[in-house]
Amino acid sequence: MPIAAVAKESEVDVLIIGAGPAGVMCANALAMAGVNVRIIDQRPAKVAAGQADGIQPRTIEVLQSYGLAERLLREGNQMHMAAFYNPSPSGGIERTSRAPDVTAPSARYPFEVTLHQGAIEAIFLDSMSAHGVIVERPIVPTYIELSQSEEELKDPNAHPVILKHLDPSEREGDSEIVKAKFVVGADGAHSWVRKSLGISMDGEQTDYIWGVVDMVPDTDFPDIRCKCAVHSNNGSCMIIPREGDLVRLYIQLSDRDVVDPATGRVDKSKMGPEKLLAVAQKSFKPFEISTSGQIDWWTLYIIGQRVASKFSVRERVFIAGDACHTHSPKAGQGMNASMNDTHNLAWKLTHVLRGWSDLSLLQTYEFERRKYAQDLIDFDKKFSKLFSGKPRTQDNQDGVSHEEFLGAFQTFGLFTSGIGVHYEPSAITHNQHQSCASTLIVGERMVPHVFVRAADARPYDIQDLLPSDTRFKILVFVGDVANTTQAERVLRLAEEMGGQESFYRKFGHGNPSKVFDILSIASAKKQDVNYTDLPPLFRQHWSKVLLDDTDMYSRVGGGGYARYGIDQQHGAIVVVRPDGYVGIVAPFDHLKDVNTYFDSFMAQS
Amino acid sequence: MPIAAVAKESEVDVLIIGAGPAGVMCANALAMAGVNVRIIDQRPAKVAAGQADGIQPRTIEVLQSYGLAERLLREGNQMHMAAFYNPSPSGGIERTSRAPDVTAPSARYPFEVTLHQGAIEAIFLDSMSAHGVIVERPIVPTYIELSQSEEELKDPNAHPVILKHLDPSEREGDSEIVKAKFVVGADGAHSWVRKSLGISMDGEQTDYIWGVVDMVPDTDFPDIRCKCAVHSNNGSCMIIPREGDLVRLYIQLSDRDVVDPATGRVDKSKMGPEKLLAVAQKSFKPFEISTSGQIDWWTLYIIGQRVASKFSVRERVFIAGDACHTHSPKAGQGMNASMNDTHNLAWKLTHVLRGWSDLSLLQTYEFERRKYAQDLIDFDKKFSKLFSGKPRTQDNQDGVSHEEFLGAFQTFGLFTSGIGVHYEPSAITHNQHQSCASTLIVGERMVPHVFVRAADARPYDIQDLLPSDTRFKILVFVGDVANTTQAERVLRLAEEMGGQESFYRKFGHGNPSKVFDILSIASAKKQDVNYTDLPPLFRQHWSKVLLDDTDMYSRVGGGGYARYGIDQQHGAIVVVRPDGYVGIVAPFDHLKDVNTYFDSFMAQS
Repeated sequence: MPIAAVAKESEVDVLIIGAGPAGVMCANALAMAGVNVRIIDQRPAKVAAGQADGIQPRTIEVLQSYGLAERLLREGNQMHMAAFYNPSPSGGIERTSRAPDVTAPSARYPFEVTLHQGAIEAIFLDSMSAHGVIVERPIVPTYIELSQSEEELKDPNAHPVILKHLDPSEREGDSEIVKAKFVVGADGAHSWVRKSLGISMDGEQTDYIWGVVDMVPDTDFPDIRCKCAVHSNNGSCMIIPREGDLVRLYIQLSDRDVVDPATGRVDKSKMGPEKLLAVAQKSFKPFEISTSGQIDWWTLYIIGQRVASKFSVRERVFIAGDACHTHSPKAGQGMNASMNDTHNLAWKLTHVLRGWSDLSLLQTYEFERRKYAQDLIDFDKKFSKLFSGKPRTQDNQDGVSHEEFLGAFQTFGLFTSGIGVHYEPSAITHNQHQSCASTLIVGERMVPHVFVRAADARPYDIQDLLPSDTRFKILVFVGDVANTTQAERVLRLAEEMGGQESFYRKFGHGNPSKVFDILSIASAKKQDVNYTDLPPLFRQHWSKVLLDDTDMYSRVGGGGYARYGIDQQHGAIVVVRPDGYVGIVAPFDHLKDVNTYFDSFMAQS
Repeated sequence: MPIAAVAKESEVDVLIIGAGPAGVMCANALAMAGVNVRIIDQRPAKVAAGQADGIQPRTIEVLQSYGLAERLLREGNQMHMAAFYNPSPSGGIERTSRAPDVTAPSARYPFEVTLHQGAIEAIFLDSMSAHGVIVERPIVPTYIELSQSEEELKDPNAHPVILKHLDPSEREGDSEIVKAKFVVGADGAHSWVRKSLGISMDGEQTDYIWGVVDMVPDTDFPDIRCKCAVHSNNGSCMIIPREGDLVRLYIQLSDRDVVDPATGRVDKSKMGPEKLLAVAQKSFKPFEISTSGQIDWWTLYIIGQRVASKFSVRERVFIAGDACHTHSPKAGQGMNASMNDTHNLAWKLTHVLRGWSDLSLLQTYEFERRKYAQDLIDFDKKFSKLFSGKPRTQDNQDGVSHEEFLGAFQTFGLFTSGIGVHYEPSAITHNQHQSCASTLIVGERMVPHVFVRAADARPYDIQDLLPSDTRFKILVFVGDVANTTQAERVLRLAEEMGGQESFYRKFGHGNPSKVFDILSIASAKKQDVNYTDLPPLFRQHWSKVLLDDTDMYSRVGGGGYARYGIDQQHGAIVVVRPDGYVGIVAPFDHLKDVNTYFDSFMAQS
């Protein structure tokens, strides 16, 4: 490739290819962190309708950590209730039961939000733009090359990725060479980045063919505003209510509906939105469903269940989102898995770029997210099979029973909600002291709970004090500071943590409160404690001291130590990663293990 | 006055004079309702710092009803806890107790929000601007005249108010004559409108002189982020924590600090922010308080306690806010009373302008708000006296005891929070059937409570379904619709309410859902009820049916019928006014009294 012929050349720290959910999550996180980042997309405009639309409970927590959940909750629909319909003895379908849509007891937002992908992406685009980053489009990448120099690859300040791209509206000569420290390929299921780097997708395509229609329905179906799994003897449907009065239907199709017998391939021209709706109408009987409006969006798909063999090349080029995993949309995981991929990656890139962490930190991205993607495919296989299977009836005793389906729906709830995502031990998750905070599982997200601020008794969910601001949060559960022995232990801990040998100074790069945010949480009551009672390191601002107590009106709060499995007398140290996952928990007398934790991936200035 | 010499002339439905809290609340409410409104202010720019800053619990509910509370809560500080300091036996002060800042158990937001007046006004200005209304400034009104023609005054379509004003940046010849249907004088304590119309202020000035400073303090005082009443033997102070790290101090002054002995008047030049702080420092001992930053704002004031003798002239010109009541700022009532004045007035003007109600409806503004203002002054007299009094000590047995002060603080809580505001019976508050919803007091604001939507089990605070959208809300508590006798009663009620004789048709102006919003609330459980079970009038959209049940996770909701004192079997009808106050409650078999209610002030098309 004659790249020397091209005039324009530039350098950037991170180049993101693709402005879908994974790309915009990444770009926004990096923009908020002040990283030198660009994002390009080959589509001329953002998505207007259709596509993915479900935001899971954990993803809402993640959006909230970037200050973006408020708008999502204002614009989106909430699914709280699920309903299950099965063949009725008198023909047609009937409701078998209703159940909570989310079965993850610790979810802060115990529901799913549905909103079309364009509106969700707009939340990120507006936030990025407030931080000075906009998507450059339409820009088509045409060439990528990774340096072969080991020296360059090991130098965090080098720009070992060369990428050529072009603006299709310009002449070829106006294309650009970008030298990047890091490239993130968030360019979808047909990822150009993945193919260019020769990364294979492992897995296979299923036989399940589904259609999707978005519309405002006219119906007498009483659960049209719930998530519904409809299993009839005339096919299966899934209902996903959306923003406003919109409803999405997933409709199971048979080969004869859509497959061209000559080629054996899906022929979209054999199907249309009216035909799709006609298929759905058969499974809804005796209920009527139609629309007096337009079909907002429709598509067909065959479920593929694949995971990329690698998520990164030399920790310089990464792939994320649909580029590294494809699966069925019906469990509403796609957009969530994608966003959480780059939520996991962005802080790691930032730390490396700032010189706070070694390049090796970036290995944990593939380690954590590929394992998750594999779990997701395993789940999807089981769920798709159950969902696409025929219902068990008098005449079909081999079919899927309602109990079996509901059981799976609820068992999988912790996984599908995103709440149960668990990262295995690595450089950034050390679980040797798990017992001192027995229910704050290392490798899982910090459990939300309401505490009150000592200075003003204002209640806060602790998650709101753990924003995605790239800092590690050091939560010092100081125990019962009214007890003088404990008060002395707290003083000693503050001295030790503030000392030269401690991670706080060692990796503080001269201004430790930029790298670490210390919060202290006492088990004592608001009537008795002054925030001024704590040592200065543990109250660097009046807002940094919390109490495990109710608010003034006993409406919220209290019981946090018990919920977290932390001893109310002696407390514990809890380190929360910048992405909100617990990194290590330790008793006061094992601060050295917290030092070791940071030693294992952080860099000194 | 030679008005004939002026060239520019215009007509407007409502002209608001003054863009303080009362003015912008009024302008925004009218703008949202699509009323032809203008608002002028003589100040060249909006307030940047200082001034009033406390938003009471009821006012937060009101802002929420206009969709404005989210931003207020994001930007403002919250006061949850109050602390009381009194003379210590060892000299100086000590904390006597902490208590909830708000003592109004039904408050939806059980705290006060503090934020500087400019930021609060900006919330309204941005909302108004989104509805196409901006403040015209600087514009100085110079002449006002009300028509003497009874015919004109009684014609709702006439423009009987003539007002001349001018843009001081233009030549006199460029001033304008505005003919208005209605004028609202929200032009402050020295109201030009009030004076021009010769309305007197009844009441007197007190002897209490106070200073105010806003600053970011350096202090070891442990309750600096709480509302504090500090009574020392060296004077009294009140602490109001503000947004960010700002704190406001109210400091009691003695005559010798500020009064010019020659004239007997307050001489602001004798005092300055440093001197004020020095007075405060004496009462804080043994705690230290100072600032390393700037004094953000300061002022001095003498409490005047006065109410205007009239709030309106012929229901064509109204005065609102500080123009009709002045009192001490320390109970944080000023801005709240002002905003609630025009919140009360705006929907009434709208209804009259739309031809939905008779002009007589406007009489209820003075009736309701003047009574409230008088109650406010009565409260203020008691509270100021207690606050400004010397504390009771060994040496001063006549002083105010802590118990006396705390008791008053809590007794007055219902009033100061705004939650207890009670409008007496009038054309728009009929209380003859109070017993059928015994705790939804007619003339008080609708009590917040969480219900779940039948269609999707999403929980909603009922207040969020009662927005300030100018419609009367008809809440049909349909009782236990699973019971067939009750289901029949509900059907009959729907027939009767939908009939030609009913208020719904009679005053519906051809499109009753524009005037009335019907919500139905069943006492049955979410597992059992379909929203489709109700008669169409009571479920005009799937979102209009609620259940008195918990959400799917039993975190919120349930017990609403009991809380409202409504029979779970038989239900009741509750009419909520457009401003969120209960207008009438009635049993199903007294729909005729609901008809009579609307007959007493509404107009047929």
